Amino acid sequence: MLDVLNSCKGFILDVDGVICRGSREIEGGVRGVKRLIEEGKKVVFVSNNSTRSRRMLIERFRSFGLDVSEEDIIVATYATASYLLKFGRLRVFTTGEEGLIEELELAGHTIVDYDEAECLVVASNRKLDYDLMTKALRCCLNVDRYVATNPDRIFPGWDGPIPGTGMIIGALYWMTGRMPDAVVGKPSEIIMREALRKLNCKPEEVAVVGDQVEVDVVAGKKVGCKTVLVLSGVTTEENLKDKLKIEKPDVIVKDLDGLWRR
Amino acid sequence: MLDVLNSCKGFILDVDGVICRGSREIEGGVRGVKRLIEEGKKVVFVSNNSTRSRRMLIERFRSFGLDVSEEDIIVATYATASYLLKFGRLRVFTTGEEGLIEELELAGHTIVDYDEAECLVVASNRKLDYDLMTKALRCCLNVDRYVATNPDRIFPGWDGPIPGTGMIIGALYWMTGRMPDAVVGKPSEIIMREALRKLNCKPEEVAVVGDQVEVDVVAGKKVGCKTVLVLSGVTTEENLKDKLKIEKPDVIVKDLDGLWRR
Repeated sequence: MLDVLNSCKGFILDVDGVICRGSREIEGGVRGVKRLIEEGKKVVFVSNNSTRSRRMLIERFRSFGLDVSEEDIIVATYATASYLLKFGRLRVFTTGEEGLIEELELAGHTIVDYDEAECLVVASNRKLDYDLMTKALRCCLNVDRYVATNPDRIFPGWDGPIPGTGMIIGALYWMTGRMPDAVVGKPSEIIMREALRKLNCKPEEVAVVGDQVEVDVVAGKKVGCKTVLVLSGVTTEENLKDKLKIEKPDVIVKDLDGLWRR
Repeated sequence: MLDVLNSCKGFILDVDGVICRGSREIEGGVRGVKRLIEEGKKVVFVSNNSTRSRRMLIERFRSFGLDVSEEDIIVATYATASYLLKFGRLRVFTTGEEGLIEELELAGHTIVDYDEAECLVVASNRKLDYDLMTKALRCCLNVDRYVATNPDRIFPGWDGPIPGTGMIIGALYWMTGRMPDAVVGKPSEIIMREALRKLNCKPEEVAVVGDQVEVDVVAGKKVGCKTVLVLSGVTTEENLKDKLKIEKPDVIVKDLDGLWRR
């Protein structure tokens, strides 16, 4: 089996399911991050979270005893705001929450109502309602540019599955026939290339670590990195066999710390 | 051109776009209904409305000076509740509003939470929120039977398009891969056969009148009725040519009263 600790200089780490579940720390994950840093590895966190800004994630990491900076984090909110700069500073209508709005405004975009927008940004929102979906529908029918922060259809909530950004993408597609021009989050190459740029490593020197085969492993393979699947999140001993039909990771470990226990 | 007034004994009339727009009367529509009744035609109203009970529609009709009874109305809420009786009196979780709940309970079904249901009934809800979509998702993943009141993806609101029941069908399909076992409203044959039973006429003796080619004209053709398209709703002189590519009605008139002005 591949020894990623010896062969890799850089690590792209997923957050939810690797470091924490929601606001609760995964001990083996946090211990693993500390070890990677002690051993001089370059680390960047890449998360499909569409409701939190980098600032919010940093606060959460601090509560686990991890001291990271904005430079170490690429979250789908921030990555989407950055990606859009390719097209200028835009007037944006978004379905998203405060965390996304914070990153869009930090990047220089302006948040406007649906009928004044030149760009629609779709992202999950726990305050979603009929009025917001009506505005998103009308925006989607008229706007030039339409992007989504991430493609996730379902997330594992603490008491069962909850809808992800994909729910809104699907609802809009069903109503209008229109899909986003770009989806920024994993497994999209957009967010992975940004992570490789931050690490300043060649893809073959980098391991992508995550808990979802169809998100993290697929994203890692797409850009030519090594891939590590951890069983501390949504993939478990029970559903592993089915998931491996999608794509095979180079390494499977119980949690991030498991890299040292093999 | 076909003379439906001479050749038809029964009329299946759409409501929104034929008799009224929301709570506002369409004069030529109401006048047309009165004339049909004066001339001794059998009339039944068939509506894809998924938020109102028959009682609610009767009140609206009264405000237009039309005196109709529950026997004369088949609305998707009622038709769905009736259709489900095929499978017994069920424990139902629904995304729908009070009007649908009223009809489900009148038919003998019991409204329960998502984790106690044996049947999911999807219908539009102007109070839809993230919590309701989460419950619908979980119910859809587990329940034996799943039906939808109507397939409409977008409705014309007073100030622009608004999401219909189809938005929820699409969102659930995107998240779970599951489509309803049955969709009751037009153009489904389920609601049309129910209307023909009420009229007690042969299909060829009946004219289906509506404002939407893909809903009303398609539904009428499916069950072998004559079809009349009125231009008092969503189909207009401007979009007519495109709509006729879907299906051709036997007769096109400005409004229902136009049947006497040809």
